[in-house]
Amino acid sequence: MRIAFVGTGVMGRSMAGHLLAAGHEVRVHTRTRAKAEPLLAAGARWAETSAAAADGADAALSMVGHPSDVDEVWRGPSGFLRVARPGQLLVDLTTSDPALARVLAAEAAAKGAEALDAPVSGGDRGAREATLSIMVGGSPAGFAQARPLLAVLGKTLVLQGGPGAGQLCKLANQVAVASGMVAVCEALAFARATGLDAAAVLESISGGAAGSWGLSNLAPRVLKGDFAPGFHVRHFTKDLGLALAAAQASGAELPGLRLAARLYAEVERAGDADLGTQVLARLYFSRLGA
Amino acid sequence: MRIAFVGTGVMGRSMAGHLLAAGHEVRVHTRTRAKAEPLLAAGARWAETSAAAADGADAALSMVGHPSDVDEVWRGPSGFLRVARPGQLLVDLTTSDPALARVLAAEAAAKGAEALDAPVSGGDRGAREATLSIMVGGSPAGFAQARPLLAVLGKTLVLQGGPGAGQLCKLANQVAVASGMVAVCEALAFARATGLDAAAVLESISGGAAGSWGLSNLAPRVLKGDFAPGFHVRHFTKDLGLALAAAQASGAELPGLRLAARLYAEVERAGDADLGTQVLARLYFSRLGA
Repeated sequence: MRIAFVGTGVMGRSMAGHLLAAGHEVRVHTRTRAKAEPLLAAGARWAETSAAAADGADAALSMVGHPSDVDEVWRGPSGFLRVARPGQLLVDLTTSDPALARVLAAEAAAKGAEALDAPVSGGDRGAREATLSIMVGGSPAGFAQARPLLAVLGKTLVLQGGPGAGQLCKLANQVAVASGMVAVCEALAFARATGLDAAAVLESISGGAAGSWGLSNLAPRVLKGDFAPGFHVRHFTKDLGLALAAAQASGAELPGLRLAARLYAEVERAGDADLGTQVLARLYFSRLGA
Repeated sequence: MRIAFVGTGVMGRSMAGHLLAAGHEVRVHTRTRAKAEPLLAAGARWAETSAAAADGADAALSMVGHPSDVDEVWRGPSGFLRVARPGQLLVDLTTSDPALARVLAAEAAAKGAEALDAPVSGGDRGAREATLSIMVGGSPAGFAQARPLLAVLGKTLVLQGGPGAGQLCKLANQVAVASGMVAVCEALAFARATGLDAAAVLESISGGAAGSWGLSNLAPRVLKGDFAPGFHVRHFTKDLGLALAAAQASGAELPGLRLAARLYAEVERAGDADLGTQVLARLYFSRLGA
């Protein structure tokens, strides 16, 4: 298939690479051309704009940063929708705004194209190993059309509902991650404050009812003083903002999410937006004077 | 070995049963004799008091409800400490107060006995299958002495530090569980409020960064409307109270723990203290009018 791929950051680069490796013809565009070079070296072709990448393609995919970037790549003067045509598949993989996803789907439908919102979880490693969970919003027909491509990128593919439902599912994921991070950091802070050996505590508690992905994967990094980003604080706070807005719009009262958003805002004010989400533990430790 | 076991509720019954099955001579005492009958039928002997059970035993173990019960079983007029003697091993398996554990250890030491605090996690199932995580506070010598007995009851045995450290570790576990439950319930509430199919959401999010024991084990029960206790709300609120007190005493500022304690107090006020901790989800749903 002829595929357009826009956005070749850490995640997008792996994804576009898998599509190339699967034998597809891939045209890429991204804000900073240098970031596309490894893909161009591997056989992808360069396009000067999102529209140029998508023009004539069977499918156009985007994996960018913020909803405003998605809006630009799809609805901008050189965006996907300028060249969308009947039968074409358009997929946004960015974690973005459910309301925007519904707008994109409606505008794509007006041109006879199928649009899906398909945000992912699994991080850079999931993208690299093609083990992502991909949460899809759109029509069953669009999902069926996209499935062979998505199967190249991830292993858990679920249609969550109509346009926007993929984004809402990803936000539900982030709601769980948010209080999950509070759980991890408070257990570590409690251990430190009460004089326990946190590594021994993790050994005792990680395998039981307190167990979580974060406790197994992020807590050990905290103990090593490793705050390098798996997932960046600044991306997480974006997601928390989207989740808060969606919760408010739907009447859900989520005090744990509000608390996490408040704590991560403090992390950003401390200048740690470019570190990994596990740096929240350092905020707790600093309050202990430890 | 001659072993005293006091407290034959759901957890204690399984534990005492394993000790019997391992060939030990077990004397049991519990508040309501009827609860000990299955053990007596299996070969345990009845003792009229905790002291009578412990008198002459190589080791005396307790698994009761609240710190006040532990205090009675150990320090009461017919308690373990009345008959404690040099070389005897005393072990409290109850989730209890770290400060009380230190008092018990000091009073046991004054009689030449070794006392350990050794609360467990893993629930009724972990007790039944002898897969508990046992978090031990006490001396290395006491831990070495107890290890063969504890290995009959659980599979993760870690000495966390001196007297009280086992209790503190268990409370660290409960701190993580507390915000972990908020994470699970808020993800479900978000899914419901935004019109998603919560089962499909769990399929997408349980295997990734949002994954946790609660999401895999309790969220599916919530979706089936199953609020039967694995772990009772009333026991959890006891533990949260102990954790809050220990956090305050050590200067740890844990807003997630405070939030969870506030929410579970609401669950108790709603009359749900005897249901399982997953009933917190119902509090969230009721606020959605759903």
